[in-house]
Amino acid sequence: MTTKIIIINGPNLNLLGVREPDIYGHSNFEDYLAQLRGQYSDVDIEYFQSNHEGAIIDKLHEKGFSGCDAIILNAGAYTHTSLAIADAIAAINTPVIEVHISNVHAREEIRHRSMISGVCRGVIAGFGLDSYRLATESALRL
Amino acid sequence: MTTKIIIINGPNLNLLGVREPDIYGHSNFEDYLAQLRGQYSDVDIEYFQSNHEGAIIDKLHEKGFSGCDAIILNAGAYTHTSLAIADAIAAINTPVIEVHISNVHAREEIRHRSMISGVCRGVIAGFGLDSYRLATESALRL
Amino acid sequence: MTTKIIIINGPNLNLLGVREPDIYGHSNFEDYLAQLRGQYSDVDIEYFQSNHEGAIIDKLHEKGFSGCDAIILNAGAYTHTSLAIADAIAAINTPVIEVHISNVHAREEIRHRSMISGVCRGVIAGFGLDSYRLATESALRL
Amino acid sequence: MTTKIIIINGPNLNLLGVREPDIYGHSNFEDYLAQLRGQYSDVDIEYFQSNHEGAIIDKLHEKGFSGCDAIILNAGAYTHTSLAIADAIAAINTPVIEVHISNVHAREEIRHRSMISGVCRGVIAGFGLDSYRLATESALRL
Amino acid sequence: MTTKIIIINGPNLNLLGVREPDIYGHSNFEDYLAQLRGQYSDVDIEYFQSNHEGAIIDKLHEKGFSGCDAIILNAGAYTHTSLAIADAIAAINTPVIEVHISNVHAREEIRHRSMISGVCRGVIAGFGLDSYRLATESALRL
Amino acid sequence: MTTKIIIINGPNLNLLGVREPDIYGHSNFEDYLAQLRGQYSDVDIEYFQSNHEGAIIDKLHEKGFSGCDAIILNAGAYTHTSLAIADAIAAINTPVIEVHISNVHAREEIRHRSMISGVCRGVIAGFGLDSYRLATESALRL
Amino acid sequence: MTTKIIIINGPNLNLLGVREPDIYGHSNFEDYLAQLRGQYSDVDIEYFQSNHEGAIIDKLHEKGFSGCDAIILNAGAYTHTSLAIADAIAAINTPVIEVHISNVHAREEIRHRSMISGVCRGVIAGFGLDSYRLATESALRL
Amino acid sequence: MTTKIIIINGPNLNLLGVREPDIYGHSNFEDYLAQLRGQYSDVDIEYFQSNHEGAIIDKLHEKGFSGCDAIILNAGAYTHTSLAIADAIAAINTPVIEVHISNVHAREEIRHRSMISGVCRGVIAGFGLDSYRLATESALRL
Amino acid sequence: MTTKIIIINGPNLNLLGVREPDIYGHSNFEDYLAQLRGQYSDVDIEYFQSNHEGAIIDKLHEKGFSGCDAIILNAGAYTHTSLAIADAIAAINTPVIEVHISNVHAREEIRHRSMISGVCRGVIAGFGLDSYRLATESALRL
Amino acid sequence: MTTKIIIINGPNLNLLGVREPDIYGHSNFEDYLAQLRGQYSDVDIEYFQSNHEGAIIDKLHEKGFSGCDAIILNAGAYTHTSLAIADAIAAINTPVIEVHISNVHAREEIRHRSMISGVCRGVIAGFGLDSYRLATESALRL
Amino acid sequence: MTTKIIIINGPNLNLLGVREPDIYGHSNFEDYLAQLRGQYSDVDIEYFQSNHEGAIIDKLHEKGFSGCDAIILNAGAYTHTSLAIADAIAAINTPVIEVHISNVHAREEIRHRSMISGVCRGVIAGFGLDSYRLATESALRL
Amino acid sequence: MTTKIIIINGPNLNLLGVREPDIYGHSNFEDYLAQLRGQYSDVDIEYFQSNHEGAIIDKLHEKGFSGCDAIILNAGAYTHTSLAIADAIAAINTPVIEVHISNVHAREEIRHRSMISGVCRGVIAGFGLDSYRLATESALRL
Repeated sequence: MTTKIIIINGPNLNLLGVREPDIYGHSNFEDYLAQLRGQYSDVDIEYFQSNHEGAIIDKLHEKGFSGCDAIILNAGAYTHTSLAIADAIAAINTPVIEVHISNVHAREEIRHRSMISGVCRGVIAGFGLDSYRLATESALRL
Repeated sequence: MTTKIIIINGPNLNLLGVREPDIYGHSNFEDYLAQLRGQYSDVDIEYFQSNHEGAIIDKLHEKGFSGCDAIILNAGAYTHTSLAIADAIAAINTPVIEVHISNVHAREEIRHRSMISGVCRGVIAGFGLDSYRLATESALRL
Repeated sequence: MTTKIIIINGPNLNLLGVREPDIYGHSNFEDYLAQLRGQYSDVDIEYFQSNHEGAIIDKLHEKGFSGCDAIILNAGAYTHTSLAIADAIAAINTPVIEVHISNVHAREEIRHRSMISGVCRGVIAGFGLDSYRLATESALRL
Repeated sequence: MTTKIIIINGPNLNLLGVREPDIYGHSNFEDYLAQLRGQYSDVDIEYFQSNHEGAIIDKLHEKGFSGCDAIILNAGAYTHTSLAIADAIAAINTPVIEVHISNVHAREEIRHRSMISGVCRGVIAGFGLDSYRLATESALRL
Repeated sequence: MTTKIIIINGPNLNLLGVREPDIYGHSNFEDYLAQLRGQYSDVDIEYFQSNHEGAIIDKLHEKGFSGCDAIILNAGAYTHTSLAIADAIAAINTPVIEVHISNVHAREEIRHRSMISGVCRGVIAGFGLDSYRLATESALRL
Repeated sequence: MTTKIIIINGPNLNLLGVREPDIYGHSNFEDYLAQLRGQYSDVDIEYFQSNHEGAIIDKLHEKGFSGCDAIILNAGAYTHTSLAIADAIAAINTPVIEVHISNVHAREEIRHRSMISGVCRGVIAGFGLDSYRLATESALRL
Repeated sequence: MTTKIIIINGPNLNLLGVREPDIYGHSNFEDYLAQLRGQYSDVDIEYFQSNHEGAIIDKLHEKGFSGCDAIILNAGAYTHTSLAIADAIAAINTPVIEVHISNVHAREEIRHRSMISGVCRGVIAGFGLDSYRLATESALRL
Repeated sequence: MTTKIIIINGPNLNLLGVREPDIYGHSNFEDYLAQLRGQYSDVDIEYFQSNHEGAIIDKLHEKGFSGCDAIILNAGAYTHTSLAIADAIAAINTPVIEVHISNVHAREEIRHRSMISGVCRGVIAGFGLDSYRLATESALRL
Repeated sequence: MTTKIIIINGPNLNLLGVREPDIYGHSNFEDYLAQLRGQYSDVDIEYFQSNHEGAIIDKLHEKGFSGCDAIILNAGAYTHTSLAIADAIAAINTPVIEVHISNVHAREEIRHRSMISGVCRGVIAGFGLDSYRLATESALRL
Repeated sequence: MTTKIIIINGPNLNLLGVREPDIYGHSNFEDYLAQLRGQYSDVDIEYFQSNHEGAIIDKLHEKGFSGCDAIILNAGAYTHTSLAIADAIAAINTPVIEVHISNVHAREEIRHRSMISGVCRGVIAGFGLDSYRLATESALRL
Repeated sequence: MTTKIIIINGPNLNLLGVREPDIYGHSNFEDYLAQLRGQYSDVDIEYFQSNHEGAIIDKLHEKGFSGCDAIILNAGAYTHTSLAIADAIAAINTPVIEVHISNVHAREEIRHRSMISGVCRGVIAGFGLDSYRLATESALRL
Repeated sequence: MTTKIIIINGPNLNLLGVREPDIYGHSNFEDYLAQLRGQYSDVDIEYFQSNHEGAIIDKLHEKGFSGCDAIILNAGAYTHTSLAIADAIAAINTPVIEVHISNVHAREEIRHRSMISGVCRGVIAGFGLDSYRLATESALRL
């Protein structure tokens, strides 16, 4: 049976491969995604990116009550400031897995506090783009 | 003479009746609204909901300088994080009444601090959906 | 059937109409009360005021286990300092509605923190003396 | 020789057996007191309860300089807010033993800070009503 | 013309001469008062002491709107915890002068913060009982 | 050679001339802009305003990697709450100059902390609308 | 029937009678223990002391699931810094009674915060070595 | 080629399957380990558990400079209090992956702060025992 | 016998009568001083003003060990920032009386904390220039 | 008509060109000043530098009440610690413009808080020595 | 006469010469020790290193009451977290000199706070391995 | 070859031997200096003391770029408040060694934070006047 997953990327993650490559690496996300889909033939991986907090909430609502098995969310900077996204995660039924490309704990103080971790199923951070693969792995055994 | 009011609901309030019913109750907001309009035949109650902070600000601007007598605002999680909404409230002429369905003070620490209360006319919190009726009542005597 | 309510006013509220009229208005509370009773013929509204934290607790105990349907409490400055009153509210059976005449959130920092809101049923603040009418309204539908 | 002790109970402790029984138990204090007196025939145990901070201070003064060997004080919520009671304890000669029925450290943050412990002889907390017996025991060997 | 003053002493100040004499000195307040009255024949000095926060508020109300030229207040520990007394001072017309016998700033941290200084006319602290004479002096030139 | 600049105004700045004129002045921004363009004939000044955090990020991305020499950003209230905008500024190549019309440091505490200043090239605040001219001046010598 | 108890003493408590006698008294613990065992002939009191956090955890595990009725723990300085000991207490079945010889609340700030009190059954502090007897007393009625 | 990994479990993790099963699950770690080894035939997984902070440091030193490809560390409560373990991780050459069984961010405040995350390669938390498999997965692609 | 006093005024107090007259009044200090000297014929009042922290320390040293009976110090803003002046006061033998013209407690937060009060004999604040007379009065009875 | 300006540089700014050139650049201030004067022939620019807080206050007083149109102040480290300089700025009539060479917000935490910004007319920071030219520009339109 | 000293090194200091050589240098401690002993022929220098907090306490006890003239302690990371070691130092008779190889104040915030400095005789930090020689020097004149 | 050193002593250190002898000892600094110079015949030790922050900065500048091998600085109370001195130390080339006579960590909280330690080469505190000799020793091996 196919597992259905959506990856939601938050603000500035559309710049992957462009933005601060020493922190985020040189790959652009679409290339990575193709590769990830290749590895998991029995997983249907949808993708959504937005810089808008509200659009992320709208998407969480849309996917949170229907046939989606897990949501992999890299909320970027909203991780540290958005109680509204946290509320959306708490409100929906689909489990959400928080991922980060960089090790947020090795960066500035403000990135050590997550407003959403407490309502997510689990957290994976610091493995570069491989964080998304690990999240996909975790989704298969939720 | 008809009093004109707009109710603005913020993030995740579109999920009322679906989301965490032990906190927010089982009614959906549209049903409640019909009932509320029924009670106040001389009040014209417009309704707007958005998960977007910017859209809420846009709407406050639109209604804040024209023939609206009061704005009833449940800013949801933005209550606790949005200085921009607070600035919008302070900038407009129409008085704003802050409402909350749940007793925010009985919940997590972060919900005890409101960024918008200080610029609202008054605050009504904790009476379930009846908070909106009380806000409507208050609007009639501002 | 008659609803039985008691309004309990805390410290310095005996000075209403005298004290800082730009914050609290020019009406004295007894005049307002007469008017309020006039509006709600089916509600029996008792009144008690004290500057003594202990007397307020005694009164909450007295009314909290007998034939009183709701308590409307304006604890004044004790709102921000009295854990003992909060404990009394939590201990009794009758629901308590917190009211404030002024918008406490638009005043000094110390008035933004309430020690009692979390154990009250709901909070109404900032509507001048009309806050008491709204509380009465709310009591009719608890 | 008879040891003279006074037990002083602070705010809301008159509701024991009535108030939040899952925290404070189902016994009313007078019944417990009778039983305690029965256990210690050579101890004269006086009892005083008040919801008034000032009355507790008055009583501490009254008993603090005369033929009382120890004061067992459960200051309830005043434990966490009353510097005035702390000053009274520091001012008198009779040693004061602080007791709590519940384990205050397992409750809300604000109950973890005691304003009076530092001036008491010792602290006993969390043993239910048995805390009073242990305090009596301790008083016999001060 | 006679100047009318009232000295209000707060909690534990009835123990002067008894309590911690290395901090508060050996004189009892009544003896000092007689001496002070002797020095100021044209000043009518009333005296009130209470351990009850509410009673101090009641007295401030009583003296705050009638023929009293100044109130000299040593609120004792309530200086540091009572917003209700601060509100009473702000509410009345008679100017209030805050006094302390000891230098509160040379004592524990909690005594460095005063909740009432901001609404008093001025503050005099640290001169032993002579603080009251200095306050009387100041009252003559308000 | 023509210098290309974009001015990005954040939330509530569309209300300039309308909103709190004692803080923000009476001019509307479009009038001011015409005047500014008149002063700098060799500078091409584009203008964008949005109340949406996400739209500001989108615009920063659009202008941050192409033929724009400098971005003048008045992020309004998002200055103090948006880590996502700060991340966008850090991610792009075009230098960003932070401006404020009012002296944010003379206003409420929360406006003293900027989340974006550290990643901007420089900050200009408090000169009314002239802040934009000064920013334009600074852009000519980056 | 015999009650089985273990007293666990943490770091530096092996120095009792040697270390800071004005705080901890002149008795060495072994002498006291003999005397305590003499008083409670029907209680089997085992004793363990270690300066090693890990050894204390090992001992809590060993005694926490077998035929021990209560553990009396004086964790010394680890009281204030060891979350790992707190976790061990929470993990085991045997109830743990926290004791302190000195009144920790009358000492430095850091000793006012206990990391373990919240997971212990109760706390007894400040009675010198008699704290252990009171803890034994309490264990008999858990 | 075989990848060599060591799993180091910190305090109280020897109680897995016994301790608070609603948080940590019912499996004992040895059973889980056998299963994990079964899944990864080309990975040599060593195991070490200790309740002693010092023993964990000793083991990190031993494995940190020799033929070990990755260390998977669940430091338990020491995660939140041990700077010494953080220093050991920073000092060694082998990369360390931090894991937690429970979602530490959904638990008490003190567990939201990690002293070691900043010096680990990445963090995986909240997936129950599956967190160890995900860590093993991640180790294969470091 | 003549009492010898020195009044030391700190930064910006040379502007008295010029600077913010609504806070500090319209009198210049020299005029006031002449008047004060006139009132106390048996007191020799020296005067020193400096905007330099170091010069104030030098003067405290000079007067602190010789025939000066008391030092009246208005350290202005240094009151709130200078540990070095506090150390100088603690180091000398002559008692120092802290005065303020305005009620510092009714002004900004930073002025509520004094670094020097704890080492002064006493504090007099809020009586306008009369604060200096009261300090002189107090000096006569030290 | 000639505009009269004074530039006041605070501590360590005499080392410009010598001190930490990666932060402050390689130019010495006198060379820059000559160049700046060359650009503004109708502006009379005086210059003063001191490492003494008191000397800066003296100079602010001297220039703050006479024929000087604006003061450009780079208070260096005193920006973050000197309430006395802030008081001097508030006390004088001439407007003060705060400048910084480096972007203080991109440096250590302590440099993010300015004690003087709130009383200055405006702030310009981060443009290297060009910050002084921008301040001069701003002074021409105050 | 021979002076007897023990050097106690805490966690991770066994890695000297291996660990982060840019902070701690390239020498291994044993080589340095040989050299140090060579310089002080009349000083008997014992050496002990452990990564175990408890073992350090045990050693402090062992050496703290017998013929050792001074203890030189580099507690490594335990400097910042161990109240138990601080208690051990306070409990023993032998003076303890705190040393650090690196300048802890130039490193992360958490290393700026020492829990043990207050109970040590003195502190020497930042001179590389030479800190131990300076401590030895100091020990000769205690 | 002769090593050139300057000892700079900050505020109140001119009172050594006079000021609080239980903290600072009975020797005056000049006597000590003569003795120190006697011990180090190959070291040229200059001496400077000032109570003026600015004068200390001036002296650091003067000695910081010329033929001085090391600066030994006891900044007294400025240690804890002067960012300007810290900036001066960071700006100069000559290494600075921070010394304190007393163990600042055993005194009040405010003396536990040093603003200058992070930019000094090393710190020596608590050895009485011998701290200067140890600093001289350290200077010989920088």
